[in-house]
Amino acid sequence: MPGGRPNVLFIMTDQMRADCMSCAGHPVVRTPHLDELAGSGVLFRRAYVQSAVCGPSRMCFYTGRYPHANRSPWNEVPLPADEKTMGHYFSDGGYRAALCGKTHYTPDPLDDPLVQPAEGIRRATLAGLETWELNDGRGEGWLDHLRSAGYPEEVVRDPFHVDVPADADRDHAAYPTRFRREDSDTAFMTDRAMAFMDDAGETPWFLHLSYFKPHLPIVAPYPYNALYDPADSPAPNRSAEELARPHPFHVPFRIERKGVEYDDEAVWRQRRATYYGLITEIDDQLGRLFRFMKDRGLWEDTLIIFTSDHGEYVGDHWMFEKELFYDEAYNVPFIVRDPRSCADGTRGAAMDDFVESLDVLPTCMDVCGLGGPGGPDAPAVLQGRSLVPLLRGERPDDWRAEVYADWDFRFYWTPKKLGIPPERCRGWMVRDDRFKYWHFNGMPDVLFDLEADPGELRNAAGDPRYAGVIQDLRVRLMDWRMSNEDVSRVAWTYERRPGFGRNPFVA
Amino acid sequence: MPGGRPNVLFIMTDQMRADCMSCAGHPVVRTPHLDELAGSGVLFRRAYVQSAVCGPSRMCFYTGRYPHANRSPWNEVPLPADEKTMGHYFSDGGYRAALCGKTHYTPDPLDDPLVQPAEGIRRATLAGLETWELNDGRGEGWLDHLRSAGYPEEVVRDPFHVDVPADADRDHAAYPTRFRREDSDTAFMTDRAMAFMDDAGETPWFLHLSYFKPHLPIVAPYPYNALYDPADSPAPNRSAEELARPHPFHVPFRIERKGVEYDDEAVWRQRRATYYGLITEIDDQLGRLFRFMKDRGLWEDTLIIFTSDHGEYVGDHWMFEKELFYDEAYNVPFIVRDPRSCADGTRGAAMDDFVESLDVLPTCMDVCGLGGPGGPDAPAVLQGRSLVPLLRGERPDDWRAEVYADWDFRFYWTPKKLGIPPERCRGWMVRDDRFKYWHFNGMPDVLFDLEADPGELRNAAGDPRYAGVIQDLRVRLMDWRMSNEDVSRVAWTYERRPGFGRNPFVA
Repeated sequence: MPGGRPNVLFIMTDQMRADCMSCAGHPVVRTPHLDELAGSGVLFRRAYVQSAVCGPSRMCFYTGRYPHANRSPWNEVPLPADEKTMGHYFSDGGYRAALCGKTHYTPDPLDDPLVQPAEGIRRATLAGLETWELNDGRGEGWLDHLRSAGYPEEVVRDPFHVDVPADADRDHAAYPTRFRREDSDTAFMTDRAMAFMDDAGETPWFLHLSYFKPHLPIVAPYPYNALYDPADSPAPNRSAEELARPHPFHVPFRIERKGVEYDDEAVWRQRRATYYGLITEIDDQLGRLFRFMKDRGLWEDTLIIFTSDHGEYVGDHWMFEKELFYDEAYNVPFIVRDPRSCADGTRGAAMDDFVESLDVLPTCMDVCGLGGPGGPDAPAVLQGRSLVPLLRGERPDDWRAEVYADWDFRFYWTPKKLGIPPERCRGWMVRDDRFKYWHFNGMPDVLFDLEADPGELRNAAGDPRYAGVIQDLRVRLMDWRMSNEDVSRVAWTYERRPGFGRNPFVA
Repeated sequence: MPGGRPNVLFIMTDQMRADCMSCAGHPVVRTPHLDELAGSGVLFRRAYVQSAVCGPSRMCFYTGRYPHANRSPWNEVPLPADEKTMGHYFSDGGYRAALCGKTHYTPDPLDDPLVQPAEGIRRATLAGLETWELNDGRGEGWLDHLRSAGYPEEVVRDPFHVDVPADADRDHAAYPTRFRREDSDTAFMTDRAMAFMDDAGETPWFLHLSYFKPHLPIVAPYPYNALYDPADSPAPNRSAEELARPHPFHVPFRIERKGVEYDDEAVWRQRRATYYGLITEIDDQLGRLFRFMKDRGLWEDTLIIFTSDHGEYVGDHWMFEKELFYDEAYNVPFIVRDPRSCADGTRGAAMDDFVESLDVLPTCMDVCGLGGPGGPDAPAVLQGRSLVPLLRGERPDDWRAEVYADWDFRFYWTPKKLGIPPERCRGWMVRDDRFKYWHFNGMPDVLFDLEADPGELRNAAGDPRYAGVIQDLRVRLMDWRMSNEDVSRVAWTYERRPGFGRNPFVA
């Protein structure tokens, strides 16, 4: 490892479910290279994001802080300029920290333009990462590549359009994109990641390789559009009772987010199949990348983390996309390969300890010697925990017993339809080993007993037998919030003024 | 009024209880000029601060936002530079906005040095107020005044030291300061306020006149040290049961904050008497100021708000100072005199509608035509409400039914003594017409039934008859937090992107 410090390859897919890997037991989708990664690292089966919307979920990964603390709880909401990101921490630590792909980062218009490096806070341009390649949907670099590869301008202009026969009776997801597999955004971004590794040379690097897929539109290049037979797609996790006794939010929201389309069996069968195809496409590209890294001697020098910003319903709970607080949206694939010998004892393990997206940054910092939480370099503002003890096979007694999420939904049509004012458009979720509880400001509670109802199909909140459970979960939500205020300035003050709180019994 | 816009005189005392005015029914203390102000304005009897510590309480007044939102929840914790204050709003609105006295403001070391006026956010130097005169305890201006008035350097160096006879058997609060009444900080700051009004001339002005007293040290110049007979001091509001069955926090905290001294009857009698003297001193100076304003024709041109940053126990609940969530600390004097004719119908009224410190800024902006909350100039970040409807004699149906407070106590010795880690040192309080509920992260609940126990002497949290009440109050605390996130950037985005949340039934 250059200078004894591992490189970091932080791979993120967009809208990929935790269950969609062979190593996670999926009956259809094939992911041999992710399986290989998991086989030489650790698969965390209960990893949760803190928001299931792209932007805020990513801001949690980047800052190591909950949405209410980093104050960017929805897409397009600027990340405040005083939020430090993994880009800042790693470039401050002597790494070349770069982005290859998607961030969904919005710079802060309330920012001041200059910098006080003495305090370690700087303008968070592209979340502090060098922009090696950007693709927040239609990256210019990829479009230029399509152009230079000879595709006509209409393809460049609308690369995800698929040509559908006039008499087509299948969902458009069945048809291939007009670009070939070797020219897809997934392939292009993989090429660019390899180019970055060559460019970085001996400098220790932190690369955020961030694929845009399998995010909608659910269309794939040949052969991935036809790789899986729709007849094999597992049926959605949903029940008639969900529609018969819906939460008031669910009815308009599934209209708004086009969940209704998935009521049609042909639609969910085909879209699931194509969605799986997009995942195998990513897996194929990762196979190419991993081979490249092994050829270059980087495989044993690099910490690799693979995850997604959130999941996707593809028809589960009668929904499309990823909002609401079901596991299909919040539980994400999560594989960590720590190349150091101290992690040899856990290679190939699958763990059920709860992981939050906030843990990625402290883990990377810990592995790279930039200090774990509580260490001198990791300020109290980090709200996640380093996974290194788990990677070493040690399970701390105080490992977290639950995960939390937070959703600001003022930007949707549904609250307008329901007459919910913007300031009340907030939901909190807590999930522990046994229960999941959603609290909405002024809307009915949702509680799932995951032991009796692992699919989250029967809201038990009205059942008097669970009244005590809800009370307990509410207190945990309150205490979670109290323990995770945005303490940037509080911690700054606390660390610098040891004279506070003097013992009154000492003169 | 200059340009048809009233001036604003925002008067704040430090550590003055709501009950310590004759117009509030106090049996001892005399406040004829505050009574006159209340007689020609409105006395709000249930005004609450959102923190009972000087700095954070003031930051709530200045920003119109709760402590968790403005992120300055304790003394010396910097106010983030992107927080707009009354100084910014009023200077942006064409007012000369100035400080005369105390702020307890700490500038933001994480700030960037420059400004983007286009977005209306600027560096919050002294909370955005011109520093006409500063006195955060020992202001240089006042010390210079003492010097030029001929006091020896030892008095200037330690102005609140009192000479106590060697054989004194009374509390030092009984003895006069070495400076005369006409040279006190209270008198000096009043002189400076008058000088400001002369200096401002025809420019509309916003003056924050902020007295340091009756904050400790409880010592007063003659005759205020001896104005009230300790024999007349009403006994503290406390019960033997409070000591017999204390909250775990109470025992070490009353040691840390010197509440124990007040177990001695002579001490509480004398300190209460001197505390009342300091209040009458302020009242005398306000009388002088009000006469000056009438002489200058300013009385009918000026919105006057009188309040305090928090109260003081002076022995109540066996405590000194102002922390914990009892009414003696959080309920503050609050008088508003709106000079406009639309407020004539309520002059002399006393109201029991709940007021929060957050209401001062929206009220001032509303009276001065800078836009009330929801108006074009008052952004969604303001979390208080304009009191103008109440001043007009209209009570909005949706007026708040409760008040909230928030306390970060990591800076004290008590949590160290109790082994509470910093991140759990947070308490929330909600108080409605009937109940007050304190929730601490990991410590026992506190509930007072104010109907049965108006003095807050019996913690009813363990009583099963109140279990449902506590559940309800917890939900209200959660919903309060959800409704009052720091939405600076969320609101910015929401206001500028009307395309979000489009109706799916419209093409």
